[in-house]
Formats: sequence, C-alpha cells, structure tokens
Amino acid sequence: MGRVTDLFEPETVGVIGATDREGAVGRAILENLREEFAGELVAINPSRDEVLGLECHTDVASAPPVDLAVVVVPPSAVLETVRELGEAGTEHVVVVTAGFSETGSEGARRERELRDVAAAYDLNVVGPNSLGVMSTDAGLNATFGPESALEGSISFMSQSGAFITAVLDWANEQGIGFQDVVSLGNKTVLDETDFVRAWGDDPDTDVVIGYLEDIENGDEFVEVAREVTEETPIVLVKSGRTDAGAKAASSHTGAIAGSERAYEAGLEQAGVVRATSVQELFDYARALSGGTEPASDGVAVVTNAGGPGVLTTDAIGDSTLRMAQFDDGTIEALTDAMPAEANVYNPIDAIGDADVDRFGRALEIALADPDVGSAVVVSAPTAVLEYDTLAETVIEKREEFEKPVVTCLMGGRRARAAEEVLREFAIPNYFDPSRAVAGLDALARYRDVRARTVDDPERFDVDRDRARAILSRADRRDDNRLGVESMDLLEAYGIPTPAGEVVGDPDRAREVARSIDGDVVVKIVSPDISHKSDIGGVRVGVGDADVYDAYEDVVSRARNYQPDATILGVQIQEMVNLEAATETIVGMNRDPQFGPLLLFGLGGIFVEILEDTAVRVAPIGEGDAREMTDEIRAAPLLRGARGREPADVDAVVETIQRLSQLVIDFPAILELDVNPLVAGPEGVQAIDLRLTVDTDEL
Amino acid sequence: MGRVTDLFEPETVGVIGATDREGAVGRAILENLREEFAGELVAINPSRDEVLGLECHTDVASAPPVDLAVVVVPPSAVLETVRELGEAGTEHVVVVTAGFSETGSEGARRERELRDVAAAYDLNVVGPNSLGVMSTDAGLNATFGPESALEGSISFMSQSGAFITAVLDWANEQGIGFQDVVSLGNKTVLDETDFVRAWGDDPDTDVVIGYLEDIENGDEFVEVAREVTEETPIVLVKSGRTDAGAKAASSHTGAIAGSERAYEAGLEQAGVVRATSVQELFDYARALSGGTEPASDGVAVVTNAGGPGVLTTDAIGDSTLRMAQFDDGTIEALTDAMPAEANVYNPIDAIGDADVDRFGRALEIALADPDVGSAVVVSAPTAVLEYDTLAETVIEKREEFEKPVVTCLMGGRRARAAEEVLREFAIPNYFDPSRAVAGLDALARYRDVRARTVDDPERFDVDRDRARAILSRADRRDDNRLGVESMDLLEAYGIPTPAGEVVGDPDRAREVARSIDGDVVVKIVSPDISHKSDIGGVRVGVGDADVYDAYEDVVSRARNYQPDATILGVQIQEMVNLEAATETIVGMNRDPQFGPLLLFGLGGIFVEILEDTAVRVAPIGEGDAREMTDEIRAAPLLRGARGREPADVDAVVETIQRLSQLVIDFPAILELDVNPLVAGPEGVQAIDLRLTVDTDEL
Repeated sequence: MGRVTDLFEPETVGVIGATDREGAVGRAILENLREEFAGELVAINPSRDEVLGLECHTDVASAPPVDLAVVVVPPSAVLETVRELGEAGTEHVVVVTAGFSETGSEGARRERELRDVAAAYDLNVVGPNSLGVMSTDAGLNATFGPESALEGSISFMSQSGAFITAVLDWANEQGIGFQDVVSLGNKTVLDETDFVRAWGDDPDTDVVIGYLEDIENGDEFVEVAREVTEETPIVLVKSGRTDAGAKAASSHTGAIAGSERAYEAGLEQAGVVRATSVQELFDYARALSGGTEPASDGVAVVTNAGGPGVLTTDAIGDSTLRMAQFDDGTIEALTDAMPAEANVYNPIDAIGDADVDRFGRALEIALADPDVGSAVVVSAPTAVLEYDTLAETVIEKREEFEKPVVTCLMGGRRARAAEEVLREFAIPNYFDPSRAVAGLDALARYRDVRARTVDDPERFDVDRDRARAILSRADRRDDNRLGVESMDLLEAYGIPTPAGEVVGDPDRAREVARSIDGDVVVKIVSPDISHKSDIGGVRVGVGDADVYDAYEDVVSRARNYQPDATILGVQIQEMVNLEAATETIVGMNRDPQFGPLLLFGLGGIFVEILEDTAVRVAPIGEGDAREMTDEIRAAPLLRGARGREPADVDAVVETIQRLSQLVIDFPAILELDVNPLVAGPEGVQAIDLRLTVDTDEL
Repeated sequence: MGRVTDLFEPETVGVIGATDREGAVGRAILENLREEFAGELVAINPSRDEVLGLECHTDVASAPPVDLAVVVVPPSAVLETVRELGEAGTEHVVVVTAGFSETGSEGARRERELRDVAAAYDLNVVGPNSLGVMSTDAGLNATFGPESALEGSISFMSQSGAFITAVLDWANEQGIGFQDVVSLGNKTVLDETDFVRAWGDDPDTDVVIGYLEDIENGDEFVEVAREVTEETPIVLVKSGRTDAGAKAASSHTGAIAGSERAYEAGLEQAGVVRATSVQELFDYARALSGGTEPASDGVAVVTNAGGPGVLTTDAIGDSTLRMAQFDDGTIEALTDAMPAEANVYNPIDAIGDADVDRFGRALEIALADPDVGSAVVVSAPTAVLEYDTLAETVIEKREEFEKPVVTCLMGGRRARAAEEVLREFAIPNYFDPSRAVAGLDALARYRDVRARTVDDPERFDVDRDRARAILSRADRRDDNRLGVESMDLLEAYGIPTPAGEVVGDPDRAREVARSIDGDVVVKIVSPDISHKSDIGGVRVGVGDADVYDAYEDVVSRARNYQPDATILGVQIQEMVNLEAATETIVGMNRDPQFGPLLLFGLGGIFVEILEDTAVRVAPIGEGDAREMTDEIRAAPLLRGARGREPADVDAVVETIQRLSQLVIDFPAILELDVNPLVAGPEGVQAIDLRLTVDTDEL
C-alpha cells in the first residue's frame, strides 16, 4: 500500500465520472481541481469526449495512469472502476459515490466487496460517501464542496462531509488555514488511525484536528495516537458523547457506539485533547498551532481594564492553570514602569489611559518573571490604544521571551485589523477572556501529554496455565459465569485471597474451618443466586463447632429460595477484619471499540450511588493504575482521611495491574468484578469474584 | 427621590465640566450627547463662555434647571457641584469624575460625604467613577465612550466601564441593540438593585443583563430580583467566582467579596440566570429577548447534515433539555414529506439536497408535535439552500406555532445575510450548535423561574423568649461559643433532641441516667475541647450502674488533656439508635452580602471529604428546604437506597425550616452547626450543637 501521505501529493489526478452537467458532483470536483492544481488532470467518462475543455477518456484502462483517482460513478459501477484502477497501478482512490453501508444491507454488501477489492490491489481508499480530500500545499481540492481551504498547518479529518463544508465557509472568513482536509466517509479502508499516523509523519502538519462519530479500532488508535502526540497535538470532537447523541450518531452512520467512558479513557490515554464543540475545537487548535509550550502553569494577565481583568482571572481559576505569583523584582519593575494608580500585582491593570508602550512594558516585565509560563493580554478599546500596534508589540514580546501569549483585544470592528496581524504569527485573538484562557489551557494540557512517561505494563510472574484451567471450568459446567468458587484464578495471578475453600459436604466444611484461624464465613455458592445475604445464604463469624449446622442451614435456605438453583457448594472462608480496612472494587468489561476497560472505585455507595469511579483501557502500567486510585473523589478515604489508618495503596495499585494482565492474557474473560477488594493498612484481599467467560475464546 | 426610570428620560441634560479641550472627558460627553439627544443641552463651566457652539454657564445656580446632570468636574469640586444641583432641584446626577473610594482612604471619605449630600437632597446619583448612562429611546448617550448603542430591548448595567466600551464595540458589529445602559461606577447611591427594580417596571426592557463584581445588599437584591424575574428575565455575569477572581475583584473595586456559595444560592433564589462569560451573557440575552416560552423541554432538531445534527443532539444531552419524542402522526407526516433516505426520527435529517421548502415542511411538522417545546434548525451550507430564504421560513414557522426556534446556520459569509434577517425578529443565529442549545436552555430555565411558587417561610410556634434567655448565657459566661449544654435552644424551636441533661456532679449524673430508658452517653462539655472522642471524653452505652464512674472518668481525662479547659459539666444523654438512621448536618454562617446562609448535607465524609452540600439564603420555605435534601449527590441514601429504610425526610425538611426561623429571629447567632442531626425512619434528633453568638446583638 502506498504511503497515506502520498495521497495528498499526487502529480496526476483522475476523475472517474467527470462531467460538465450543471449541478453534477463530477463537475464540481473537476472545477475545484482545475482551480489551483498544478499537476495533470485526467477526465474519464465513457459517454463524453471532452469535459470542460479536457480530453475525456472512455475508461481507466485507456486513460493515462493517475496517482490519485476520484471516483464519482454510480454505486453499481464503483467496484468495477476501483478494480480497474488497481489493475492500472493507481495507489490512492477517493470514492465520493454514496449508496453503501449508510443505505442498508445491499449497500453494506457492496461496501464489503469494495474492501475486498481494495485489499486485493493494496489500495488506499478514502470513503465511500466522502466529500473528498484537499491539500493546500499541493493546490489540491478534490472535493465537491463550495469552498477551498486557506493555507495553514492544521490537518483536518471529518466523518461528516457537511461539517467540512460548514467549517471551511467559517474558517475562510476567520482566516484560519489548513494543510490537509479529508472527508472520511464510511471509512471502509482508511480511517482516523491511518490519517493520524500519516499526519504524525508530516512536517507541515502542526496540529491534527478531527470530527469523529466513532473510532473503529479504539485500541489501535490509542497506540498510534499515543506516539503521534509525542510530537503533534491532536484535538478531537467525538460526537455521540451523550446517550441521545450516541443514538443519533448510530442512526446517522450505522456505527456501533462504544461507551462514552471508554472513549473518555481511551482518548485521554492516547494524549488527545478533547473538544466538545466546534468553537472549542478551533480555539484549541489555534492556540496549539502557535507551537510554544508554557514552562509553568502560572499565567500573567495584562490589561487596561479592571473588569475584563477579573473575568480573565476567574477563567484562570476555572482552568487547570493558575495566576502567576510575581517575584519582588517584577513588582518593583512594574511599580517603576506603571503609573501610581496601576495595579502591579497579577492581574496587572495598566489602567484606562494605557497606550501600546505601557502595555508593552508591562508585558515584557511580566514575561521575564520566572513564574510566568504564559500570558493573556486583555484590553477594552480606548482612544489612546491602537489595537494593530498593540498586536505587533505582542508578537515581538512573544518572540523575545518564547512564552505563549494569547490576546483578548475586546471589541468588534476595532479588533479585526489587529486579528489579521496576529493571525500571521499564529496568535489567536478571542473576544471572550474565557476562550483565551481555554486556548492557553489546551497548550498546558498538551505540554503535560508530551511530558508524561507512559510506562510499559509490568509483566508479573503468574501461573497462566492454572488460570486457563480454572477458566475452562465454565466450559465444562456449560455456564459462562464463574464466581467465588474460582477465587483460585486470582491466586494464580498473585492476588491475595482469604484462606478457604468451596466444599461439598458439611464434614469437609468443618475440616476446612478447623484449618483456619478464628471464625469463618459460610456462604452458599450458586451462579443462580445473586443476593446471597438477602436470602440468608451467608453466615458470618461462625466458630468451628457451628460450621456443620451453618453449612446445612445455608444450603436449605438456598433450596427453599430457589429449588432449581445450581448449587456449586458452600464456601468456608477466613473472616477478614474490615474494621480498619476500606472496601474497593476493581472491575472490567470489554468495550466493542477499545477492548478491556478497567474500573476502580470504593465499594458500596461510592460506586453504586455516587458513581465515583476511575476508568482505563487495559493494559495499563503502574502510573495509570496509581492515577486511578488518585482521581476518584473519595481518594482521601484511601489515603487515611478523618483519622483512619491509610490503606495500602501500593497493594491496590499492584492488584489493578495484575488484573490488567489477566484480562489481556485472556480475551475470553468478557466481564470481571472483584468486589470487594479489601484494602487494609498492610496488603489487600480479594473477598469475592464474578466473571463471565466466552468459552469459545479459550 | 425621583423615579430611577426617569433618569433615562430627561428633557434637559446639563454637563458640568463641559469643555472643548481635545481629548477631555467633558468634551467627549458633550459630543456624544449632541449626536442624537433631541432635548435641551446645558453646558456649565466657569472658565468658558461657549463650548462647541453651546452657550456655557458659569455655575449651576445661574444655569437653567436640568433633569439630568452629568458631573465631570475635578474630584475636589464634586461635592459642591452636587450640592448646588440639589439646591437647583435636579433629581438625577451622574458623577463621571473618578478619584473616590477606588483611590484610597481620602477618596473613600469624599465618597461618604457624597452619599450624605445625595441623601440630604434626595438625589439619584450614578457613580462616581462612572462611564455614564445611555438610553437609546431618548437618543441619550451621556457617556464618554467611543460608541453609541444600537436600539434594542436589552437593558445593561456594568460595574466596569471598560466592559461597556468593549461590549458596545462588539455588539454594534453584531447588530445587538440596547434599551438603557448604565455604568454603575462606585455605586455610592444607586446600585444594581435600584436598576433591576427600575427596569422591572420599564415596558421597553425585555431583558436585564449585567456585569457585577459584587452585590452590596444581597438580601435586598434577592427580594427585588425575585419579583422582577416574574416578568423580566435577568442575566448576570458575577465575576470573582473563583478564589483568584475574588481577590482580583477586591483589589479592583475595593469590594468585600462575599462567598461564591452565597452568590450562587442568592442569585438562584432570586431567579437570576447566571452566565460565566461575555459570550454566554449575550447568548442567553439574545434567546431571552425573543420572548416565547417553551411549553415543554422536548426539542426538535431539523438539519440537512448528520454530523451537525449529532453535535446538536449531544448539546441537548448536556443541557437541562431533552430530545422531543415525536408521536406517530409526526413520523407519518415526515415520512410522507421527506425523501426515503431522510431520517424522520429526531434529529430530523432532511439530507444534503434539502432546499428551503423541505426544511420548512420538516420544521412545520416538527413544531406541530405536542412534545416539541422548541426547535433548533441546523444547516451546513449547500448549493441548493438559500440561507436568507431559510431565515424567512424559520421566522414564519415560529410565528405560526408560537414556539421558540433558534438557528445554527453554519458558515461564515454565507450566514451573515441570514443573520440580519433573523435578528429583526429576535431569532439568534449561532455558529456552534452547543451555543444554540444553550440559548434554548436559558429560555427553559427562565420559564421554570416564572413557574415556580416561592412559598413564604412558615412561622412555627416557638418559644422565642426561652431561646433569647439561652443565648444570653454566652454573655454571662463571657464566651461567645455555645455547645451541647445549650441543646434546649433547639427544643425552644421545636427541634427534637435526645432526653438528657448537662450535670455538674456524678450523683446527679446517675439520677439523670436512671430517668432515661436504656443506656446513656456520657460526654464532657467544654468549649475548649473540640475532639472530645479523641481524648476519651465520650463514653457510649453506659448503664445506670456505671454512670458515676464514667462521669469521673471523662472529667479526669479532660483535665489531664487540658488542665485549664473550662468544663461546663458532663452531658448525660439518651443513646440514639444509629443503626437504621442517617447522620445529617444542618449549618449556618452569615455572609457579609447575603446574610444567613443555610447548609445541608449528610454527616461524616459527605460534607468533609466529598463537599456534597446544598446551600440557601435564609429565610426559606418548605420548597427550598426540600430541594436542599434533594439536590445533594448523596440524596438517594436519604431516600432509602441499597435496601435501607428511607429516612424521615419530612422531619429533616421541617428542622431546616425551624433553624431558618431561628437564625432569622436572632441575628446574634453568627454561626450554628447541628451535627449530627440524626434522621431515622420516623423523626429526627439533634445530637450535638455548636454556635457562635455576637452578644452585642442580643
């Protein structure tokens, strides 16, 4: 397969389905291509000799070979056309034609065939159902949209063609430019992962942005994006975040929506900066295309107006940034440089009669402060302030100090000229202080993405064969649910469990109890009975002498409750001292896009009522596992709030990692819940376990 | 005092300090006034005979009387000028001159004198340190700003003059108009409450908006705004929301920042729609100025593009609104009217080749559906869609169905013409679907404000004299902290407490214990010992026989711990069964702006670690008290989640109201904490109490 980046640098482009019919897509594409493309254009259409002054070829075979083919033939002719292109040696194909999986089962069948043809000829196919692709560098507009993109360093992919049309119309007005633009269409062959990979290698792309409705192979995407974001920021709007939106997205593209928690975790782990609206997408992208990284989270605010200064300060308070603390030298220098009524503490209020000079001096002094990682220049229009000169000063100071500066030169007409000056230097101007700060915040978040070290998951020494044997019980039992009788699965993976055993008769129960120090818990083991305590199926604090009776009791209660329940035995388990311990939960379920999704939270109300959980896509290393224990709201309870002894968080972190390894080693485990995992001052113990196994996968 | 509304309708306006000096504020004001004001202008300046062609009078006394005076004389001359205006019978004065409390103690003194003069002559004074006032109806621009406002129905007040300048520059570009504009300045006489009251009475004001850094008399503001918002929406940006912002605001205006929780509660109770940014302020204001109320929260989305439709659906999922559920008739009608590929379920995707006609039919059918309370029209630009004609169709359908419709006609240049058409009918167009939905959401929130019935606080039959006597103990004891020994205060207000007594010797302890059924709690009572349990000062489950020893034990432990602690006695209290009960906390502290702030939450970790609390400004009625128990995240625990018996929420609600009455009846109570208030399946009991009393207030 040719490199995806070459798709944007063709020397010859063919339009198959080229026409001069007014209003036809095949005409719109040809017209757009002719506007700026310097390479050779090849028109192909069996029923035309000439199209818009271009010689028209009957078919692919008789036409000159092309690097990139745009296919706009009727749906029924697409397969044959693509096959011919493959035969002719074309590597890159954009299928604009619609009428595939988005239209029902017949279209879906056609789309599967298209995939097969592409595979057979090793073709890079964009679409079908694509608006087309653009590359401003190559003067290439191979879309049927009404607008061409301006030149710039943002590369943009979208799963919605209409979104591209709307964004370009707006971006052209705003003077925002692009490097490459691709309408992904149905993503039959090339998808978001391919373009992220390609743009990660493209020195002309400073920022990758995208509008996506689903991510087909979440785990692959995370792996690729994680690498790309080391050098190139990725900002994405992933729609279908809410239940209503997911439903709408699925009816729009036929995509199976993964869970929002999975996307949230996966995109975060991939280092993607996530936007929730078009405005955020571009606010972030514009700030990120400036390139400079803030060295600290301290922000200086320089303004000529108290009110907007306070608003900016609030916005900083809402963000992950903070107001910089000026050192004494800075305060002194500002005091010297500013009038007596000015505020020389952050936010610097250079007051209403500040001209560009005073603004410049204030900004310069602020940027020299070691705690200042970035700055916001906020101004209200006044008679003495020239916005365009101020813009030039901002550019100058930013270059001098190499710290990010964004502006919020408030106003309408007055701000426009300044915006043009700023835009050339990739300094975004925002009307609203909160958006200026959001831009800086995106820079800081991306800096953190680059700074993080993603640790490779540790491989613990485990007994994989034993685990496999235990999982196979599900097969033998013809029931894909395993429970507390399979606690040895956890032991095989080095996770501590209380002493005990599942027994089949009361005599054995007594023997096991005798081998255990202290009282025991006697619990019915049955995949058919969920709420064991409620039906009297659990007895705690049972002494050796009472174990026999307790055994018979829980069995008879279970039988009374549900005569046909499968009873696998009775568990005799060491009592775990819950006094100084914290109950936690570690769970896993498999997301259709991202694979195994690990969940951590505190037991009881915290997960069930307060929904206070942390989620990651497995496999994870120690860093992620530790973050999971930190990011829940109830984290202080683990760390020993309110006079409690701190729980052994290290042991919890290790257990999460071992479970990560388990679910990666065995894709057959569909769901798993260790609930509770009791964390004491020293060590943890898994008290109960449920899992669902896909026996076909074993 | 003249009516504040008259301030915006003067027939004669005087400028004291009028000048023709280039760049002077006194010239800028006169020039702005001359631009459109049809009434008489009077220039006053002792050192001029003529200013800009106007006869100039030496002083106020010798000039014709004016309805509104704008004062731009030097700070030292302001007081005398205002006094003269008072003598001359002028009722409305705008003091533009700065140099008052914002500059330090000398200025603050001058400002107090200004207040006295204004009071003596019963003057409506705006400022000092004000940019001025505008009224587009009266053609009045009595500011020194560079822009005049366009006509409109939004009245706008701002504590920052620069903010007005910035907003007007932008609003003029956007075509957003105003009724009145006032720069509040230092708010020495007239403040936000006065203008809210005035605009509430003004039939030409459809929406009141404001930028505020503080609200001086929060309780009065809440009372007035609550009444105004029954008819006129109020949207406010209150800056200084965050700690950093509050610090910046206080250094900017010298305002004492109240707590954000108090503002949050107070503004919510006042029915104010709160915005956090300039953009939100105007997004909400533009939607609200349209006037129509959505009858249901169901929103219909009509689009020609799947992607933007999904984004809009997400935004609705994020809001308090929901996607409307079309009934069968609607689906049928849409199926008939739309092409086969269209999606006739909500969001309606009329697909890419939809023209204005098809959009119109889809919108019409959607608006006719009974579950549709409002609609968003979202479109990407296409060759077949005329945006301005679409705008006209939207206007028509909105009028016909009297349901709010906002638009998101995406694009840049293409959208501008349509925006102008829409603007005339107060239909806001937004580039970003999330902002369009936020506009509709503001409409729905304001509808809820209008629909709510604010119940008058119930007056419970209480023993106020007894309460006063108990509070006076603090005075006698020369310690302003009261504790568990004052539980009878709660009894006086009808709040149940466990049986018991604070005793001074072990014999009495035994007597009290004998009078109580079951075991008792023995607890040291000392204002100097906070963590009584930690030092062994509490013994629970003590039988009658052991009470004597327990008494001696807790006293000696307290003495050992802190030999000089004041020991008020030992409490012997009935044991409360905590088994089936929920511990709650009801607290109060006084906010400098809003007065008594009531807090409710669940005990222990919920308040301390999870900060899960509900707050209201007292006095409150049953509705607010019940909302407090509903809005905490842990509310399901009160209502009986996870198999618990539900707590007696009615009794909790009544207790909150009784405490509201207590803190209103006694302003001397500075802080109060009932912790825990134990809520059982039937009834509540206050177990412990702390309060701080200002003995001078008793």
